[in-house]
Amino acid sequence: MLNYDENKVLTEHRNGLALIPQVEEMVDQACREGYSNIFYIGIGGTVLSAGQMNHMAKQLGSRLPLYVENAADFCLVGNPFFDGRSLVVIESASGDTKEVVEAVKKAHEAGARVLGYVETPGTPLYEACDHVVSARGCSYYFWYTVTLRFLKNAGMFADYDRFFRELGNLPEAVVGIHKAADQAAADYAKTYCDEPITYLVASGNLEDWAVLYGMCIMEEMLWMRTRPISAANFFHGTLEVIERDVPVLLLKGEDQTRPEMDRVEDFVRKISAKVTVFDARDYELPGISREFRGLLSPLVIRSVCQRISTHLEDRRKHPMDIRRYYRRLDY
Amino acid sequence: MLNYDENKVLTEHRNGLALIPQVEEMVDQACREGYSNIFYIGIGGTVLSAGQMNHMAKQLGSRLPLYVENAADFCLVGNPFFDGRSLVVIESASGDTKEVVEAVKKAHEAGARVLGYVETPGTPLYEACDHVVSARGCSYYFWYTVTLRFLKNAGMFADYDRFFRELGNLPEAVVGIHKAADQAAADYAKTYCDEPITYLVASGNLEDWAVLYGMCIMEEMLWMRTRPISAANFFHGTLEVIERDVPVLLLKGEDQTRPEMDRVEDFVRKISAKVTVFDARDYELPGISREFRGLLSPLVIRSVCQRISTHLEDRRKHPMDIRRYYRRLDY
Repeated sequence: MLNYDENKVLTEHRNGLALIPQVEEMVDQACREGYSNIFYIGIGGTVLSAGQMNHMAKQLGSRLPLYVENAADFCLVGNPFFDGRSLVVIESASGDTKEVVEAVKKAHEAGARVLGYVETPGTPLYEACDHVVSARGCSYYFWYTVTLRFLKNAGMFADYDRFFRELGNLPEAVVGIHKAADQAAADYAKTYCDEPITYLVASGNLEDWAVLYGMCIMEEMLWMRTRPISAANFFHGTLEVIERDVPVLLLKGEDQTRPEMDRVEDFVRKISAKVTVFDARDYELPGISREFRGLLSPLVIRSVCQRISTHLEDRRKHPMDIRRYYRRLDY
Repeated sequence: MLNYDENKVLTEHRNGLALIPQVEEMVDQACREGYSNIFYIGIGGTVLSAGQMNHMAKQLGSRLPLYVENAADFCLVGNPFFDGRSLVVIESASGDTKEVVEAVKKAHEAGARVLGYVETPGTPLYEACDHVVSARGCSYYFWYTVTLRFLKNAGMFADYDRFFRELGNLPEAVVGIHKAADQAAADYAKTYCDEPITYLVASGNLEDWAVLYGMCIMEEMLWMRTRPISAANFFHGTLEVIERDVPVLLLKGEDQTRPEMDRVEDFVRKISAKVTVFDARDYELPGISREFRGLLSPLVIRSVCQRISTHLEDRRKHPMDIRRYYRRLDY
């Protein structure tokens, strides 16, 4: 399989599993100390990951006072519900994302506590967090554990223990997804790597993933033009620009909003000759109960998209580490 | 001025002003009866208009329990905070938007009340609302009044009376904006009507407008390809696809997030030779205090964009009433 290191994948995911008890302790301590509300603060990909969790929590019936804020907005506008007993949760790979550093500073000035997943020890965000965990490539394990632990501690997710017991099967399951998706991902990349624009459609807990993948991977790392659009809004504008030769990439999950995606799929298959569907339902998750599959659609589709990225990188002859502007000049 | 009927504009806006007392009474009655929380429910343009109001409320320090929901999502997922004492607020031009009809039905089944602005009397949504107001082209007056009246009644907007007194000057001010923006709008349309994609950037209470204008006007009515992106996220992905020949349309407002737009403008002027800025600050609002200008940026930029649309319609030779799919086939 192209550029695939199965052991690296397994290690990353096992490191994610190993992170869970630390994250649980972090959340439990915050709950023991009490809080007024919870703020997931991020920017770009991190605020979109947080958004996926927020959507998931809603589908689980969460009545937690949970707010998702873009760090740049939070720095300039704040939030009227934010106070000294607020809990801030952040994620950062670099550990020095400018807007998040500033948001954490602002949060601390208000007396709030900051819990974080920061991949790079010794960085400003690593040092600034009141409670921090660190690993590489495991941020999803952090977000799932934070979110579901808060829910469990508030009596809103009775299945917590079983869910995380079954999550132990995820590293091998992800390798299985990578292998199962690879040929379709390769075909997709071969056929569509040079399209002038790609419409990405998703719904529910994948809606923010469509934006994340379109923005942080296809735009930022592959220099492809994209138009992410939620299935919920698709029929209220974007449908009119779909034509026979317009590529539409549908990322289908298994949460409660799936009928929105079925509707979009029915429509675009009539209009466009360039429809590609990646459907979480098509991938096995051995050892994971059917009722948890919807919760895990973000991880399933992310795994599929990792194979798409690898093949797009190859077909476009564009190493994904290249940036022309991001952190290359002052702005 | 191309396709411009000043009297029609004045009449629409004066009808909007005439609507205010009815909306105030609607909100006051709801407040007298009490409510648990407020749900702005819409889809496409209407949920995005509601989003602009939600952002404005936040900048005013609102601690109202206000939720903005996409109607399609609400129908499938609901919201754990929704209950029989919730107040739903909707807007509809057609009066029969499928997803909103269904959402209102679901809200009523839970015992909630529905307040609405519905342009077409006798339609399903007009009949379904518990309290309804009706006019043509005045939805912004409805949204501002609903939002700010709830805030005033909760003791969160002391300037209410002065704001709405000054709003009486808006009809003439909007005509002034149309005239002041017309030449720049014509130039923009002439130069960029055939671009293969347009990046639209806005921030704060205009962030959702960039999506609305890109989706409901440029995509739906003008069949142009767009990529709306918030200034808050611009530097976390989208920046990498900006090149010399990529058109970027910046819609700048005067709210607290303006520095985000200044930063984007500085960057794109270095990279793209096709930058156009429409800035709310450039337009006079006679009789309206400086401190209210930020609140009114959505109305100012909407007025500017109306002139852009008219000129794009002409340059593209594409009557804006044409739809190829929307309500033209089953989906």
